[in-house]
Amino acid sequence: MDVEIWSDIACPWCYVGKRRFEAALAEFEHRDEVKVTWRSFELDPDAPREREGDRAQRLAEKYGITPERAREMEAHLTEVAATDGLRMRFDIARSGSTFDGHRLVHLAATHGLQDQMKERLLRAYFSEGELVGDQETLLRLAVEVGLPEDDVRQTLADGGFADQVREDEQTAHQMGISAVPTFVIDRSLGVSGAHPPEALLQLLRQGFESRPQISLASAEGQTCGPDGRCR
Amino acid sequence: MDVEIWSDIACPWCYVGKRRFEAALAEFEHRDEVKVTWRSFELDPDAPREREGDRAQRLAEKYGITPERAREMEAHLTEVAATDGLRMRFDIARSGSTFDGHRLVHLAATHGLQDQMKERLLRAYFSEGELVGDQETLLRLAVEVGLPEDDVRQTLADGGFADQVREDEQTAHQMGISAVPTFVIDRSLGVSGAHPPEALLQLLRQGFESRPQISLASAEGQTCGPDGRCR
Repeated sequence: MDVEIWSDIACPWCYVGKRRFEAALAEFEHRDEVKVTWRSFELDPDAPREREGDRAQRLAEKYGITPERAREMEAHLTEVAATDGLRMRFDIARSGSTFDGHRLVHLAATHGLQDQMKERLLRAYFSEGELVGDQETLLRLAVEVGLPEDDVRQTLADGGFADQVREDEQTAHQMGISAVPTFVIDRSLGVSGAHPPEALLQLLRQGFESRPQISLASAEGQTCGPDGRCR
Repeated sequence: MDVEIWSDIACPWCYVGKRRFEAALAEFEHRDEVKVTWRSFELDPDAPREREGDRAQRLAEKYGITPERAREMEAHLTEVAATDGLRMRFDIARSGSTFDGHRLVHLAATHGLQDQMKERLLRAYFSEGELVGDQETLLRLAVEVGLPEDDVRQTLADGGFADQVREDEQTAHQMGISAVPTFVIDRSLGVSGAHPPEALLQLLRQGFESRPQISLASAEGQTCGPDGRCR
């Protein structure tokens, strides 16, 4: 069963949603048959390497609220996240482009380390005040996760996996995904939002029940079989 | 629309099927929306680097036929393949493991060159008498296709993408795919065999009509949107 999760790095509900999904998966009877793939979705695709200035001020201007109200919203988010075991440090968080980070999440997938890379970037952004738009920072984090340094350097330098990031975003657009996190099962069932583990477990179970059965037309065509015989 | 094609390298009908699929795709109205992924399927997973001895003799022993009959079968295949524009040289073909070749097909995918790599390996095996179980040969072919030499060397040396090859084969097994080529659309519709282009075009059209519509539950959960706002 394929579970694809569209999410960003600089996205608090994506971090919370990851924890809740992990809790759901741990309870899921068929977890051994689940393959999770992290898909890219930039909330702020035009962001520079770093967005300067006061964060609450920026949010306030964007939504037409006061900076105090913006800080209250973040305080609320921090409290909720804490109940999920996450330490959100909006006071030190540094906003900026997540494009290169998403590229490394794709690179990590080819080394079987996608989840680890995604997790590392979320922690770096939300708990450690790291600038995930910075390539030296990304290099350090990726190596820490276990990616080969040469590979990471080359990917960062030559734009590797940029196509995959854009492809994920295009797919999201085609599917009507407009907010993240969004969990999609076998490309047929999906839900947006950091729902409680019980709800996500329900989604997994529902997805499992309604798994598409591939209808393989009878093999009248010419094939070669594992006996080495071509007919 | 996702089209996955399970196939081997040392598989004549897979080569013929690739040509026929390409012809079908060229006629398909929605070809721009199709993403093709080559999936691994080894017909002879226990093969050594090279299987020694006379090929017709080996086939004959396996099937309990005479070597002459085995040669007739290959001659027939050669004739059919010629009508698809392929030059099959069973007289010089060298059998052996295709595992490393499949690994490179996966590596090539990360560089957007999967189809090119697959094609190159098929031609090398069937028309040029290359030993595709040999790592030096694979390195040369991969570089010719445009893969970075360091990347290829590293992948060949460290067993890279072995998991992906095995995963493809496991998925095939779970789906009930027992012979190749097998064409699968959106994991919901499939057909085994090197069918004529018209039949494969029909499959593409049928797959397009019955594309799974993702049912995205209304976003009651907490999400962050492209406006940067988390609710």
